[in-house]
Amino acid sequence: MPYTIEEIAKALGARAEGKTDLTITSAAEPAQAGPDQLALAMKPAFAAGLSQGKARAAMLWADAVWTDYEIEAAILVPRPRVAMAGLSAIFDPGQGYGTGIHPTAIVDPGARLGTNVSVGPMAYVAADAVIGDNSVIGPQAYIGTAARIGAGALLHSGVRIMARVRIGDRFIAHPGCVVGSDGHSFVTAEESAVEQARASLGESVTAEGQSWIRLHSLGAVVIGDDVELGANTTIDSGTVRPTQIGNGCKIDNLCHVAHNVRIGNDCLFAAQCGIAGSTVIGNNVTLGGQVGVTDNTSIGDNVVAGGASKVFSKVPAGRVIMGSPAVKMDTHLDGYKAIRRLPRLFEQVAALQKAVFKSGENE
Amino acid sequence: MPYTIEEIAKALGARAEGKTDLTITSAAEPAQAGPDQLALAMKPAFAAGLSQGKARAAMLWADAVWTDYEIEAAILVPRPRVAMAGLSAIFDPGQGYGTGIHPTAIVDPGARLGTNVSVGPMAYVAADAVIGDNSVIGPQAYIGTAARIGAGALLHSGVRIMARVRIGDRFIAHPGCVVGSDGHSFVTAEESAVEQARASLGESVTAEGQSWIRLHSLGAVVIGDDVELGANTTIDSGTVRPTQIGNGCKIDNLCHVAHNVRIGNDCLFAAQCGIAGSTVIGNNVTLGGQVGVTDNTSIGDNVVAGGASKVFSKVPAGRVIMGSPAVKMDTHLDGYKAIRRLPRLFEQVAALQKAVFKSGENE
Amino acid sequence: MPYTIEEIAKALGARAEGKTDLTITSAAEPAQAGPDQLALAMKPAFAAGLSQGKARAAMLWADAVWTDYEIEAAILVPRPRVAMAGLSAIFDPGQGYGTGIHPTAIVDPGARLGTNVSVGPMAYVAADAVIGDNSVIGPQAYIGTAARIGAGALLHSGVRIMARVRIGDRFIAHPGCVVGSDGHSFVTAEESAVEQARASLGESVTAEGQSWIRLHSLGAVVIGDDVELGANTTIDSGTVRPTQIGNGCKIDNLCHVAHNVRIGNDCLFAAQCGIAGSTVIGNNVTLGGQVGVTDNTSIGDNVVAGGASKVFSKVPAGRVIMGSPAVKMDTHLDGYKAIRRLPRLFEQVAALQKAVFKSGENE
Repeated sequence: MPYTIEEIAKALGARAEGKTDLTITSAAEPAQAGPDQLALAMKPAFAAGLSQGKARAAMLWADAVWTDYEIEAAILVPRPRVAMAGLSAIFDPGQGYGTGIHPTAIVDPGARLGTNVSVGPMAYVAADAVIGDNSVIGPQAYIGTAARIGAGALLHSGVRIMARVRIGDRFIAHPGCVVGSDGHSFVTAEESAVEQARASLGESVTAEGQSWIRLHSLGAVVIGDDVELGANTTIDSGTVRPTQIGNGCKIDNLCHVAHNVRIGNDCLFAAQCGIAGSTVIGNNVTLGGQVGVTDNTSIGDNVVAGGASKVFSKVPAGRVIMGSPAVKMDTHLDGYKAIRRLPRLFEQVAALQKAVFKSGENE
Repeated sequence: MPYTIEEIAKALGARAEGKTDLTITSAAEPAQAGPDQLALAMKPAFAAGLSQGKARAAMLWADAVWTDYEIEAAILVPRPRVAMAGLSAIFDPGQGYGTGIHPTAIVDPGARLGTNVSVGPMAYVAADAVIGDNSVIGPQAYIGTAARIGAGALLHSGVRIMARVRIGDRFIAHPGCVVGSDGHSFVTAEESAVEQARASLGESVTAEGQSWIRLHSLGAVVIGDDVELGANTTIDSGTVRPTQIGNGCKIDNLCHVAHNVRIGNDCLFAAQCGIAGSTVIGNNVTLGGQVGVTDNTSIGDNVVAGGASKVFSKVPAGRVIMGSPAVKMDTHLDGYKAIRRLPRLFEQVAALQKAVFKSGENE
Repeated sequence: MPYTIEEIAKALGARAEGKTDLTITSAAEPAQAGPDQLALAMKPAFAAGLSQGKARAAMLWADAVWTDYEIEAAILVPRPRVAMAGLSAIFDPGQGYGTGIHPTAIVDPGARLGTNVSVGPMAYVAADAVIGDNSVIGPQAYIGTAARIGAGALLHSGVRIMARVRIGDRFIAHPGCVVGSDGHSFVTAEESAVEQARASLGESVTAEGQSWIRLHSLGAVVIGDDVELGANTTIDSGTVRPTQIGNGCKIDNLCHVAHNVRIGNDCLFAAQCGIAGSTVIGNNVTLGGQVGVTDNTSIGDNVVAGGASKVFSKVPAGRVIMGSPAVKMDTHLDGYKAIRRLPRLFEQVAALQKAVFKSGENE
């Protein structure tokens, strides 16, 4: 759908200059941009590409002198990624899932759908499920018994929301995402090998022929407003109380959140993170890709964990951590540098031994 | 469904005291419990919450003096998590998948279903598949050609069991789980970069323009009785012989078991574990979350691997391991402590050099 | 389907000897092989099993003296795994997905299907999608709006190809694989905790109450010819330009490729790898299982990364890397050995201190 430069600038709360009635259909990188595309050149380095492309208009940094480039109009933005977010929302053509209840969708008569809800082909909405206004349930999705989803949700194809899960407004779930699968919670009739290992601090264990008794998950999952979950990510139900995810959390693909975990507001987890059972995570916590957090621990507000960090113990608020086991970033880097210096240290000690003992081997 | 305290205690094999004809509808934590809920306070620390909640009955530890609390009845249990497992089974309301073959399910005329099998909406059961008595095939699940599933299975929504997979009794698979996808097995016509790297112990490699020829997976998967697989977990088929998983194994979400792997009985894998091709794992092996095990190795019985351990070589039976590369737990901890002591060691060596050589730099 | 030894040898480009008109129905390991199975004994060590099985024919190494074994015919192959690849293709019975458009499949009238395309039960093909000749769309799969898939594709049950994704010929996707989910790309209106952490090199951060604004993914995904993607693997769309995967890449189960990533030709990724946003990967790159690669970096051609390597910075072409952070294989092994030598080094330094300072504590 086309917009004028003026309309786009207004939507972004940004300044437009030049021929602001030019019509734009989509966005592109400067060198690839066609005459009806907005070239994205929010850094001076990117603006060089404008001469290679055919754009007549560009989005530039706040104090750019747009007349230096061969364009006819410009949108000038102070914080480029924020402007980019707004622009991407304007031009997103979406998946085209369609409106209304598809004839092949099944909505249980006991389910309650708000106004303007769409349910895609071969999707299933079970008994007593409640779906808020303007929500989109994608093709082949599954909404379980008595699950509640707020207004404005977008569930992509193949998402599975299991029984009794409760979700706030403006929820987005990517294909294959599962919310409310049973927790992985088992117990042995006798003391298990894991319990023995913990009690003996790692001595050998001999848990012959033990079998596992399952704890059923009765607690489901409670998710706040404005949460987004990635493709094939899984969120397990709590055992007695629900697993909880706060408002504004954004969790990437292939992440795992185990039973009884509680996550605060506005957390950002990159792909393939895993949070083990009963761990508590504060607000505004950022986890890089492939981070692991052990069970029954806690992470304070505003913690930032670098990619592939493995968290084995409590992390205080505001800390930046790295490594496995994850420690403060500077501690981690010091340890890493020290390892790199070791070959030289071995030489130095050998030289000392020779000087002091007249032989490298004596002590 | 409501039960009396006496009925619950009997089902758990536990002792009930007080007003044992009280009726209970579900379980809750002490502070949140309502008057018809059983408060779970299996440790003295938890019992403090009883005064904040409204429970009239509680499940307490074995030698608790229940009359110390404002409750009217108690169930006294020796091993709390085992009792909890029993209790959770009693009160699990399940997913409500319904009974019988849903009109939108497709069951190939050549498939054989036992008695009392249910097949959910838009599920598909292919030709020559065999499903045992009392099994539940969830909505939108897929059962492939000639797959065999034993009695009492519970396949949740969107589970995919591929062709010729054979599974024992009482199988549970969570949403999105895949059993019998093709193994990731490729070969190059000439020596590959990986083979070069192994042969040269890590020197540079130059595998220009090699393309990969696939090995098809002919072996499918064989799974024993009482196995549970997590949401979006994947189990690949063997190349010639089947990939094997023994009785009683419990594998969490987002795990990967590669082609030709053999896993013994009663293993417990936490989320996001990966077992590479042709590795053999014994009985009662416990892997923490995000553990990785390399290809063509073996892990003995009763091994316990801590979270995020990466196993690169054979592990003897009974060992408790940690780290990457995974080593005995105490070896790992010693190494870790040694790294933390390094800054002080560098200072000590510098002081020695100064004393011995009258200069920190000479050797 | 049965073949003669001569037919098999011809298909493999290999030499057949003995009774080459023997009929074979499938392949097996030597000790398990029945009389109409081809025993696979491509190494002398495996040939010992021939006497335990009932095979009348075997596939042996190039210069084997087949008459030494109790078999009547042999196929002699120079590069066993290549021969195995050919053999596995010959005997693969496949999933039996059937032909034609299943009556319960939905193909939008605006979609264009080539000749001999099959669409399985309860699969959905959206408007403006284009599917090449001889492609198989498995049961319950989803092909999004304006997605384009080349000829000869095999999409297994539950695969999801999202809107505007473009894929070359001979594409294989395993169950639950998702291509074209939105990228995990967010920005805060003010400077985020992650930006603070980077700017302050890891000092504490205080990003109170920040919420995340999403960047929509407009760029979709472009995939070359002969690509194979594993079960439950996810490939995210690019923000403006497409995420790109070159020809001949083979990506295992549960891998994640983030937005804007560019991958060259003939790369091989083992299971559970993750490539973070905007990273560029060359040709013929091999990643072991659970490898992680950070965002906005690059990996040169022919790099081999060992299992569980975590790549935090640019890797030059041809390098063999290991560890976290991933470094050259020998550097990694040196560091690891040095840590193991530390306890002895501590003792040596203590002895030196005693000798030099007459006390272990003075400096």
